[in-house]
Amino acid sequence: MTTTPVAFGLIGAGAIGAFHAESLARRIPEARLAAVADPRLEAAKLLATSLDVPRATTDPFEVFADPDIDAVVITTPPQFHTDLIEAAAETGKAVFCEKPMALTLADADRAITATAKAGVALQVGFNRRYDGGFRAGHDLVTSGGIGRPQLLRSLTRDPELNDPARVPAWGIFLETLIHDFDTLNWLNPGARATEVYATADALVRPDWRDRGLLDTALVHLRYDNGAMATAEASFQAVYGYDVRGEVFGSEGMATMGDIRPSTMTAYDAHGVRNDSVRRNVDLFHDAYTAQLTEFARCVRNGTPPQTTGEDARFALAIALAAIQSVRTGQTVRLDSLDQQ
Amino acid sequence: MTTTPVAFGLIGAGAIGAFHAESLARRIPEARLAAVADPRLEAAKLLATSLDVPRATTDPFEVFADPDIDAVVITTPPQFHTDLIEAAAETGKAVFCEKPMALTLADADRAITATAKAGVALQVGFNRRYDGGFRAGHDLVTSGGIGRPQLLRSLTRDPELNDPARVPAWGIFLETLIHDFDTLNWLNPGARATEVYATADALVRPDWRDRGLLDTALVHLRYDNGAMATAEASFQAVYGYDVRGEVFGSEGMATMGDIRPSTMTAYDAHGVRNDSVRRNVDLFHDAYTAQLTEFARCVRNGTPPQTTGEDARFALAIALAAIQSVRTGQTVRLDSLDQQ
Amino acid sequence: MTTTPVAFGLIGAGAIGAFHAESLARRIPEARLAAVADPRLEAAKLLATSLDVPRATTDPFEVFADPDIDAVVITTPPQFHTDLIEAAAETGKAVFCEKPMALTLADADRAITATAKAGVALQVGFNRRYDGGFRAGHDLVTSGGIGRPQLLRSLTRDPELNDPARVPAWGIFLETLIHDFDTLNWLNPGARATEVYATADALVRPDWRDRGLLDTALVHLRYDNGAMATAEASFQAVYGYDVRGEVFGSEGMATMGDIRPSTMTAYDAHGVRNDSVRRNVDLFHDAYTAQLTEFARCVRNGTPPQTTGEDARFALAIALAAIQSVRTGQTVRLDSLDQQ
Amino acid sequence: MTTTPVAFGLIGAGAIGAFHAESLARRIPEARLAAVADPRLEAAKLLATSLDVPRATTDPFEVFADPDIDAVVITTPPQFHTDLIEAAAETGKAVFCEKPMALTLADADRAITATAKAGVALQVGFNRRYDGGFRAGHDLVTSGGIGRPQLLRSLTRDPELNDPARVPAWGIFLETLIHDFDTLNWLNPGARATEVYATADALVRPDWRDRGLLDTALVHLRYDNGAMATAEASFQAVYGYDVRGEVFGSEGMATMGDIRPSTMTAYDAHGVRNDSVRRNVDLFHDAYTAQLTEFARCVRNGTPPQTTGEDARFALAIALAAIQSVRTGQTVRLDSLDQQ
Repeated sequence: MTTTPVAFGLIGAGAIGAFHAESLARRIPEARLAAVADPRLEAAKLLATSLDVPRATTDPFEVFADPDIDAVVITTPPQFHTDLIEAAAETGKAVFCEKPMALTLADADRAITATAKAGVALQVGFNRRYDGGFRAGHDLVTSGGIGRPQLLRSLTRDPELNDPARVPAWGIFLETLIHDFDTLNWLNPGARATEVYATADALVRPDWRDRGLLDTALVHLRYDNGAMATAEASFQAVYGYDVRGEVFGSEGMATMGDIRPSTMTAYDAHGVRNDSVRRNVDLFHDAYTAQLTEFARCVRNGTPPQTTGEDARFALAIALAAIQSVRTGQTVRLDSLDQQ
Repeated sequence: MTTTPVAFGLIGAGAIGAFHAESLARRIPEARLAAVADPRLEAAKLLATSLDVPRATTDPFEVFADPDIDAVVITTPPQFHTDLIEAAAETGKAVFCEKPMALTLADADRAITATAKAGVALQVGFNRRYDGGFRAGHDLVTSGGIGRPQLLRSLTRDPELNDPARVPAWGIFLETLIHDFDTLNWLNPGARATEVYATADALVRPDWRDRGLLDTALVHLRYDNGAMATAEASFQAVYGYDVRGEVFGSEGMATMGDIRPSTMTAYDAHGVRNDSVRRNVDLFHDAYTAQLTEFARCVRNGTPPQTTGEDARFALAIALAAIQSVRTGQTVRLDSLDQQ
Repeated sequence: MTTTPVAFGLIGAGAIGAFHAESLARRIPEARLAAVADPRLEAAKLLATSLDVPRATTDPFEVFADPDIDAVVITTPPQFHTDLIEAAAETGKAVFCEKPMALTLADADRAITATAKAGVALQVGFNRRYDGGFRAGHDLVTSGGIGRPQLLRSLTRDPELNDPARVPAWGIFLETLIHDFDTLNWLNPGARATEVYATADALVRPDWRDRGLLDTALVHLRYDNGAMATAEASFQAVYGYDVRGEVFGSEGMATMGDIRPSTMTAYDAHGVRNDSVRRNVDLFHDAYTAQLTEFARCVRNGTPPQTTGEDARFALAIALAAIQSVRTGQTVRLDSLDQQ
Repeated sequence: MTTTPVAFGLIGAGAIGAFHAESLARRIPEARLAAVADPRLEAAKLLATSLDVPRATTDPFEVFADPDIDAVVITTPPQFHTDLIEAAAETGKAVFCEKPMALTLADADRAITATAKAGVALQVGFNRRYDGGFRAGHDLVTSGGIGRPQLLRSLTRDPELNDPARVPAWGIFLETLIHDFDTLNWLNPGARATEVYATADALVRPDWRDRGLLDTALVHLRYDNGAMATAEASFQAVYGYDVRGEVFGSEGMATMGDIRPSTMTAYDAHGVRNDSVRRNVDLFHDAYTAQLTEFARCVRNGTPPQTTGEDARFALAIALAAIQSVRTGQTVRLDSLDQQ
């Protein structure tokens, strides 16, 4: 393949931004990284230099304006996503945006509309879809291997809650469980969530409960095909970074996810032991690379991404319903949300 | 030990009754089976004969009246449990009663009061507490090994829904999930459930939905220590009899339950394969024996059972709240139930 | 079944004798224990009393002479096995003998001949054949599920070498690996071992090497169907009692054995952890019961046992060949042994 | 890192050569691929073009002569390895050579001497050392986590023997088990193999036995620290590509390797099922990349590789001893080999 790699600009040089930058620059033949933008110029420069990227800037619009750049990866804080997607789309850039794509349904619609109007690809960072285990489970479901989905489960447990002050309001739903909501939707193909009931609390750090921290949440969903599902999150699993899924149906079940980092099992006087994965970039290393590889191919080939703005909107609607359920103590119907 | 085994009478010669009879007669040195009662005389006689049991009768009161019998095992349909417990207690028999011990809180109280007043042991058939895996999980929790419980899960999936007509009303809560409610309570020691939200449907046999069948259910609980939990049931898991538990806390997690019946793994051109357990009496064979062994020892030693009428009442209250939640679509507070 | 249980006499009240005694007296409906013989009268009496067994004696011939006794279980030190088998057979008792049935091929032949001549059942204590996992593997092999066996493995690792002074000469082959040799034979049905090469050493306790201790051994076998196999033993696995098997063939593979005692897995800050089994009577509890249950049924029904004196002889021949291989450093052909 | 990537030439455009080429060109930031040499010019050109490599040639010496090339990867048939290593070393190229590095000890010495004299790095393709599971096992051993190694096992089972005619003479030892010999040496650090006993046969394709095919082999080793080991290979495991290791010692055990390709487990009416890996480039995808990444770093930083020519010589000596053992039916001492 003598084809030129897709030229990317990165908007946001934080932790996941730096990881994506390294993937684009070093791990994905189909991509190259041409520019890094971050309001902290030093951070942008440092990342760019370390990866031999020619341009570092504080201004994302400088990246959008560069005609040699084909696509952008947006990894800023979520509140900036929609405006940046719109601006990027207007300059004809394909957009890969980290989750959550938007924080309101109106913004989600705005992002979808802008990219559709500009005819550019829009892909959202639901990386689990690119993990080998989750992908195999999804493929089994879509091939009919488990029949009609009836009971589903998805969970996310982060390893450590270092700084409760940095947890955004409703972050457990909007930034963490948003992954699980997408996973559930994806493992229940063609079905739509209809009702959401949720509870949430500060169980990891009860001393922060009065300041509104929510570090533990459990969500109960129903879908229009009758399926029932749970999504579950905690900000502190001392044993590591735990992400699992399960889909049970009329003809069988698939389970996905395992915290063991390798095939090595150790046996000693204390019994049998395995290590555990402690970082998302370890558990999903290959998935992160695979999702950007697919996006680069979509951009190059003009094919539509499989993880779309609509998917992001469906997951966001569940997150918003869950938040409303926690606020009210009631079940929330998704169609009531849609009409807000 | 030259001590005489505890003499048992069995009340109810159905499937689980027959299994318990065989345990009492053949597998538990501390017990012997002295009488079998069942309204179907032929069934009582057949079971008694096959196990060299001298007495078979249609009349449970004949068993209660026998001064040589120390204890009874009640395995009749649930609606007869309370009256039989009362009658047995009045004649001084220790009572092992299958779950559900009662179908109303008033009946539960009646059973508890009758046995307490008579000073006889009362144990309820929550067999999972006697399974090696669940027991080890419980022991880890009570030793503090997972810290404060925060998120729990228990599920039951029966292998096959043969005859929807025979499913009792609300049976999925009162007869199946009652196990999971007890498991959750037991894995969250000292805590009490406070709120219940539940959904249920006929997903296995949607053609029976109009006749009120509920074959799939998902229950969302909160406890007074903040913990959140799910209990989940299906009447048809084509892959076998699936019972699992999970308790996650501030210092770790325990998972319990596996459908694989043995350590044999087969590898062939289709990949890697394990068999699965398809019957409760296979998955819980040792647990069933262990629970009756413990009960026989309690009777002989005059020690109190660990699985009590109060435990049965706590589980029942959750089941009743779940039923009310399905009826109303609302969250149900347990304390509102208690005041009914 | 109103049939009378088979009446057993136990010859040898050591550790495994006591365990079998308890099984016969308490865990196997088809059996009862009628007498215990041991040269240490106190040991015999203590065991008999604890199990309500009417007779305790120092004289095994007293047991053989008892016309009410149907069968004997021989659990003495191995050097007494053959004489006891002969004596028991002459009085018409069915014989269950612990492994090794004999220490020489001539003695093995003597035991086989005596029981055959008397027309009594002879079963040998290869308990792994009655373990659920190993049984499932064997059944897969005999059903053709792995095709023609080509490579096999069996291993035994005891948890602790407490007292090297009590290890009998060549005990690692004659008393430990004899299990693995039988397992390999059984998993390679219809085939005969033809050649044996073995190494052995004192690796656990090198300070005992000069006194002739062998605590670690590795045996390499060939079979007349071309299959190659290894048997492996250590007297000290600090992590527990480890017994596993593997059979690989033209159409697949079966693996058997797992040291985890239950389905409970614990997760904490140190990773993922399982307990391990530390005693043979835990790992093979059900297998020990199942083998005596089968033997009792054979005695009662007059059917031949599946684990025969011939099986014991085949395993013994391999053990003797392995010993000769260690002595000479050479491969030993089994047919050269047979002509000794 | 603004450092220039290491420029590589590839010598040999076969299957593993093409895989390494893609790694060097696309997956390893520290490397670039500058030339491809293969006697089949079309193959060289096709590979070079597909990866945007500027030079394709039939002449490896053209690659060695190129002053812009820093290092070569040799993936020709084994009989050419030594001459190519010498020639490359003489032109100052660092050398990564696929296993087996040489087919005789004299050649192994020649390769080691040539690279040492030229002061260039020499690394051999024992990729398992770079697999996460095997690496974790090795690290546990070297940290003392299992104490003194006593019993080891390594096995390789290829998925399919397509064309017996293409199996080189003694290939099962020289090309397949050479991996296992290195793994065993590496998991028994500081110890040297002293004696080898081996059996081999045509069990997969008995119809090829007369033509000298060996498709199944079992090797029994002793080490100078007393440890005993087995290495085992088959050319046809219908269930996939199976590579596992085990090291047991005075303080515990590590097991490594699993054929399951992902965390997904499927449950259906036939039981529990996992897929299996069927290609070495799937099982060891990351390991292949990691070993070349390490090699590129060694070249760039002037640090010595961890997998050396000496390691290759040790493994080769075991393979040669195993071959001699098969030929003679005797145990072969490694020191007798060294004096050939």
